[in-house]
Amino acid sequence: MSHTDSLSDLLTVAVEAAKGAGEIIRAGFNKYKLVEHKGLVDLVTETDRTCENFIFNHLKKNFPEHEFIGEETSATCGIAELTDHPTWMVDPLDGTTNFVHGFPFVCVSIGLVIGKIPTVGVVYNPIIGELFTAIRGQGAFLNGNPIKASSQTELIKSLLATEVGTKRDKATVDAVTNRINKLLFKVRSLRMAGSCALDLCGVACGRLDLFYEEAFGGPWDVAAGVVIVREAGGLVFDTHGGELDIMSRRVAASNGHLKDVFVDAILVAYENSKP
Amino acid sequence: MSHTDSLSDLLTVAVEAAKGAGEIIRAGFNKYKLVEHKGLVDLVTETDRTCENFIFNHLKKNFPEHEFIGEETSATCGIAELTDHPTWMVDPLDGTTNFVHGFPFVCVSIGLVIGKIPTVGVVYNPIIGELFTAIRGQGAFLNGNPIKASSQTELIKSLLATEVGTKRDKATVDAVTNRINKLLFKVRSLRMAGSCALDLCGVACGRLDLFYEEAFGGPWDVAAGVVIVREAGGLVFDTHGGELDIMSRRVAASNGHLKDVFVDAILVAYENSKP
Repeated sequence: MSHTDSLSDLLTVAVEAAKGAGEIIRAGFNKYKLVEHKGLVDLVTETDRTCENFIFNHLKKNFPEHEFIGEETSATCGIAELTDHPTWMVDPLDGTTNFVHGFPFVCVSIGLVIGKIPTVGVVYNPIIGELFTAIRGQGAFLNGNPIKASSQTELIKSLLATEVGTKRDKATVDAVTNRINKLLFKVRSLRMAGSCALDLCGVACGRLDLFYEEAFGGPWDVAAGVVIVREAGGLVFDTHGGELDIMSRRVAASNGHLKDVFVDAILVAYENSKP
Repeated sequence: MSHTDSLSDLLTVAVEAAKGAGEIIRAGFNKYKLVEHKGLVDLVTETDRTCENFIFNHLKKNFPEHEFIGEETSATCGIAELTDHPTWMVDPLDGTTNFVHGFPFVCVSIGLVIGKIPTVGVVYNPIIGELFTAIRGQGAFLNGNPIKASSQTELIKSLLATEVGTKRDKATVDAVTNRINKLLFKVRSLRMAGSCALDLCGVACGRLDLFYEEAFGGPWDVAAGVVIVREAGGLVFDTHGGELDIMSRRVAASNGHLKDVFVDAILVAYENSKP
């Protein structure tokens, strides 16, 4: 990062990258119905890679000295260790299963972490046309309009989101469904939309009051969403109640009021659902 | 119904009713953030009633001899017995919890049942701007473009939707989560979006491969969706595999290929999750 790069310059470039990748996703999304099942995996892989290359090149051109942790790159080379250097964390296509099925909750997620602190976040759903943005200390926005987390103070009136993940061994599935069982007694209802980054944005704009997920892909799923939730007045933390470790593949989020009761409820649910 | 009413005239009037109600929903949806929590129940009730009145009046004006079963009316007067007369089944606002929270999966559902057969269906999501329509024997459409159910033939690659409903007694919650547990081993992933009518439309347009729900509100949740799924080449049936009884508050749907394996999977899940 040159000393002249302001945070809003960083955001502008990230939004350009997200919009360019969004075009690629939209084209793939509309094409998928024409693809035979045997060709579908290739379409996903191709879309994923093309998006990540586009984003990587656009960021690298503008910020040659920044680090870059992308889902596709990491799948090939392993996850690099997080340093204090400005590091872009990129999921070029979050909600891959939704993409495959044409379910319209897919997004690009681009987060910038500086000194290990999530600082700039962009999450763009090109199908529904929703662009979530935030800069640390400067508020969160949906399509340019300020957003804020919900004002709900009662757990029993809260809307909770989670995801069932991709692991299907018996211990994991039993743990996942037992947690859901315990939490259903404590909240109003449950949503599963299939994208960790969009679930975080859902908490940020007050559509959801609560979210938790474990064992998702990597830090690229949450880096952008964390800034967006926090700047919208929401809280992001570890599923066990401590500080979020962005590399841990565990995340929970709430509006500004519900963290403590939510953590208590999660902990009880965990206690009752050890594999 | 006068003898000159063609099915496409019926559809046209139903779409007019849905779009008018959609305007009311959209206005309420954008207003909800301004409402204090104590005023929220009133907003929902008011939106629900205003929509149902608008739809009822529009249908009654055009088809004075038709029967009408609406969610709001039925809440007050009980559900009328279904006869062979042309009967409109109307959910003026499906996805009430989503409406309350600002989660963008809400819709108007208007179905016409003639001789007990679902014949015309309109489901309109005014937030995302998706209008699903179908006439028996004449195909299904999304915003005027033909849609069809997915071509997936493998259960393990299928995307399943269900809802957790509103009952929170222990027997119900245990049964619901035990079923989910059993089914998670057999499908790719699970979605819960909070609207029965939109879940059915998801199967119709191939975003979802499978859907089941029990104990939803009433026939108005499914009357329109049933026509739309069937006209898109999908199948609608009872969760136990028999013919759908539209008054039963149990529904399952699949694409054209997966019904038998899906029913087997549901039955095993039921067997293991009796309250």
